[in-house]
Amino acid sequence: MTSNLDSAYRELLIKTKDAVVLSTAEGIIHWDMEIYMPPKAVEQRSQQLALLSRIHHKLGTDPEIGKLLNSIQKSPDYEAMGQVEKRNLYLINKSYLEQTALPEKLVADLAMQEALTVNTWKKAKAKKDFNLFKADLQKLLDLSKQAAEILMKVKETKTPYEALLDNFEPKMPAETITKTFNQLLAGLKPLIAKIEDCQTKPSTQVLNLVVPVENQRKITQLITETLGYDTASSEAGGRVDETEHPFTTGYYDDVRITTHYYPNNFASSIFSVLHESGHALYEQNLNPEWQYQPVGSTCSYGIHESQSRFYENIIGRSKEFWTGFLPKIKQAAPSLNNLQLEPFIQAINKVERSKIRIEADEVTYSLHIIIRFEIERDLFADKITVNELPEAWNQKYADYLGVKIENDSEGAMQDTHWASGLYGYFPSYALGNIYSGQITAALTKDLPDWHSQLAEGKLEGINGWLKTNIHRQGDLYDPEELIKRATGRTLDSEPHLQYLNKKYGGLYGF
Amino acid sequence: MTSNLDSAYRELLIKTKDAVVLSTAEGIIHWDMEIYMPPKAVEQRSQQLALLSRIHHKLGTDPEIGKLLNSIQKSPDYEAMGQVEKRNLYLINKSYLEQTALPEKLVADLAMQEALTVNTWKKAKAKKDFNLFKADLQKLLDLSKQAAEILMKVKETKTPYEALLDNFEPKMPAETITKTFNQLLAGLKPLIAKIEDCQTKPSTQVLNLVVPVENQRKITQLITETLGYDTASSEAGGRVDETEHPFTTGYYDDVRITTHYYPNNFASSIFSVLHESGHALYEQNLNPEWQYQPVGSTCSYGIHESQSRFYENIIGRSKEFWTGFLPKIKQAAPSLNNLQLEPFIQAINKVERSKIRIEADEVTYSLHIIIRFEIERDLFADKITVNELPEAWNQKYADYLGVKIENDSEGAMQDTHWASGLYGYFPSYALGNIYSGQITAALTKDLPDWHSQLAEGKLEGINGWLKTNIHRQGDLYDPEELIKRATGRTLDSEPHLQYLNKKYGGLYGF
Repeated sequence: MTSNLDSAYRELLIKTKDAVVLSTAEGIIHWDMEIYMPPKAVEQRSQQLALLSRIHHKLGTDPEIGKLLNSIQKSPDYEAMGQVEKRNLYLINKSYLEQTALPEKLVADLAMQEALTVNTWKKAKAKKDFNLFKADLQKLLDLSKQAAEILMKVKETKTPYEALLDNFEPKMPAETITKTFNQLLAGLKPLIAKIEDCQTKPSTQVLNLVVPVENQRKITQLITETLGYDTASSEAGGRVDETEHPFTTGYYDDVRITTHYYPNNFASSIFSVLHESGHALYEQNLNPEWQYQPVGSTCSYGIHESQSRFYENIIGRSKEFWTGFLPKIKQAAPSLNNLQLEPFIQAINKVERSKIRIEADEVTYSLHIIIRFEIERDLFADKITVNELPEAWNQKYADYLGVKIENDSEGAMQDTHWASGLYGYFPSYALGNIYSGQITAALTKDLPDWHSQLAEGKLEGINGWLKTNIHRQGDLYDPEELIKRATGRTLDSEPHLQYLNKKYGGLYGF
Repeated sequence: MTSNLDSAYRELLIKTKDAVVLSTAEGIIHWDMEIYMPPKAVEQRSQQLALLSRIHHKLGTDPEIGKLLNSIQKSPDYEAMGQVEKRNLYLINKSYLEQTALPEKLVADLAMQEALTVNTWKKAKAKKDFNLFKADLQKLLDLSKQAAEILMKVKETKTPYEALLDNFEPKMPAETITKTFNQLLAGLKPLIAKIEDCQTKPSTQVLNLVVPVENQRKITQLITETLGYDTASSEAGGRVDETEHPFTTGYYDDVRITTHYYPNNFASSIFSVLHESGHALYEQNLNPEWQYQPVGSTCSYGIHESQSRFYENIIGRSKEFWTGFLPKIKQAAPSLNNLQLEPFIQAINKVERSKIRIEADEVTYSLHIIIRFEIERDLFADKITVNELPEAWNQKYADYLGVKIENDSEGAMQDTHWASGLYGYFPSYALGNIYSGQITAALTKDLPDWHSQLAEGKLEGINGWLKTNIHRQGDLYDPEELIKRATGRTLDSEPHLQYLNKKYGGLYGF
């Protein structure tokens, strides 16, 4: 690099670093809000978050960034820059164009309307009355459409909705998602029918064993330790807290998860901790050389979800994992002493059509997502209106899952996402399932005996594969390219379907 | 106000508010660092704090503030503005002049040298070797002198050290502090001699009763509840956590304290919680109408300390308080069942010459502060050098407290303040004692039966007096004016000395 180019590039990275560091501080403020903030502090906290987001926007739209980008791109030496440098520039440019394209007033209006709508949603959901919700939802949707139309031009997507998808799964075409989800739907329907036709009806009775919270905390510690997510040592970069809804937050050396302990449902926390630890490992294993650079972050929401689902489902619901791990947790929780491996594996893999996404099993989960994807896509294409939303929801639940929705609180108002302005987010969950299937197939090719390693309690090989092929790659590639490099193929639901068919064929005996 | 003046004033308040809100966010980040941050996160956290402090400095030195101030001060309607508005303008102007006067490089150099010196101090203290410490201390002192000389001109103080004092106790002349501390010293010496000459030698044996941490947590809850500092209800604006060194942080509806539980020393946490709750009540009782304005903050470090010492000593070491409260804590901690009032009161009021400030009793505490005040004043006046510091320390401890310092870790390297660049801070502690004496005298005049109210467990009258006369006044007056309005006299050590003489005369029987 020439010294001019070099100094412009360095200056850009310094500016970018500020925004990244600010995000990590915002992460701590959010974390505190969910866990430890005194109830009365709500107003003060909203002031803090609004200010930090304003500062963040200011940092991200600093005209100096535009000038530096411009001078670099015009430099005759630009082409000779390295891959990492070019990717950083690409990501800085993308973010700068997107952030500067949105008028400040629209950003502020959106933030305000999101706060209002999520508040209305809480009340309407409690009263099971969609009519209370729809006016505020309409307003938020209108503002989001305005933003999506602006972003569509900047991102050069075919539709406004595709621009929103791109916020979570960059450069993944809506067509690809639609096609893949259709294939997944076509594969899941017969699988679920086969499972339902089976004589085998697993009992979940063993999951009712009472495990005191203190013992469950020890189980959590065993899980994170086994997965290599350090939350306890004097060099730990992680920690575990307790919230109603589990989540992960953090970056590199400070990545925190939460879980929830139900004495009458010990498995709930186990799978939350496995899931959130998957997210945490991804953040912690990013390339330290890239810390605070755009390339030093995770690739997409879907890839993130593939890591959590990999540890929750592929590892955490496998017989091999529990062969070695069940004896360990019995030492931490004596009330599980008589728990047998076979009935436990059956119970944690029970498949059932249900109404609530977050309670769904590994097989039916993606159907809940496909329903939401189709509805939000149609909302943004004006194919359905807010008024028609509940009916559309109920119809799809009847068609895809064969369940009858009794009211809109278990229907169209089930999740917070649409009330929070998170349109285009839902597909990430099913993409995570699909990617995790591809990853498992590739892992099996590279490390054929990973199942037996797992049965011996050895996760080093598995963790190492993910670290090399996914985590360390950071944001060097868009998700479609990353998954192709890691697994040899672009987005493909086939491996996930094969995995499900093989696993559940074995469990249910078909 | 004319509409121009009005809009300039409003704009100033909006700018000021950002800096206040940012401080509260920084407070949460600091709080997390002390309590919950994973050990590995140190580097990331230092990046966050450096960025937030840079943003803070930028907000505080925004040239727009100078322009707005200028236009308001030149307005013919300025004189007709109200008291609160004028005080806000005064405080904004003071802070703006001080922040803009310091060159950015000096601010950055100071921050870096503080981090280095405090690190060196930790190592040198562990090795009891002042020689390891002195070079870094000298560098920090030199930079602090540079800053003090600049601030002296802006603040129009007589000496550089007085400019540093002003950072903690605005507008309190160094002469006044010197005179008052000399009077205090002159009053304390004979009192301590009298106590030492007494036949009564209180036993502290009852303080060795073992109280499990769980029970101590219940005692904490009882204390905060009794004092009216809500840390537990669904409308709480406070909370209690555990750290090695107790502290308070927060503002209005989010004020948090910490404590430390020693099973073999239950009194330690009791007095920490009483002390920190005093700080917390001050922050929580500020005038809500002034929130986020300069006037809506506490007055000075000394006044803050008067509140914590009032609840810790005047209330918390009184016989009246324990008459009602001892039966309560016995319910929370059954191991205290045989604890009798009299020996407990004797034990928690034992007076003893000692070497360590934070372990000192109510009577000797101020002597530890006066020693530090005199030394730092002389350091900044070049009357003693860094090389002479240990000897000066040891000599004063021999003269004022009659104790022999064995090494510099219990001597000149005892506290973190000088290693952290906090010059001018120490006097606040003794000023707190002095103010609390004046406050107690005024309270007694206005509410003559407060002792009997306290014995009945009623703190409403006492709390109400403090709220009206101190807390609600916010930063409307400089501390000397505030204390004059609240107690009828300017800084005066006499009431504190009278309180001590009366109380300890009763306890020791002279």
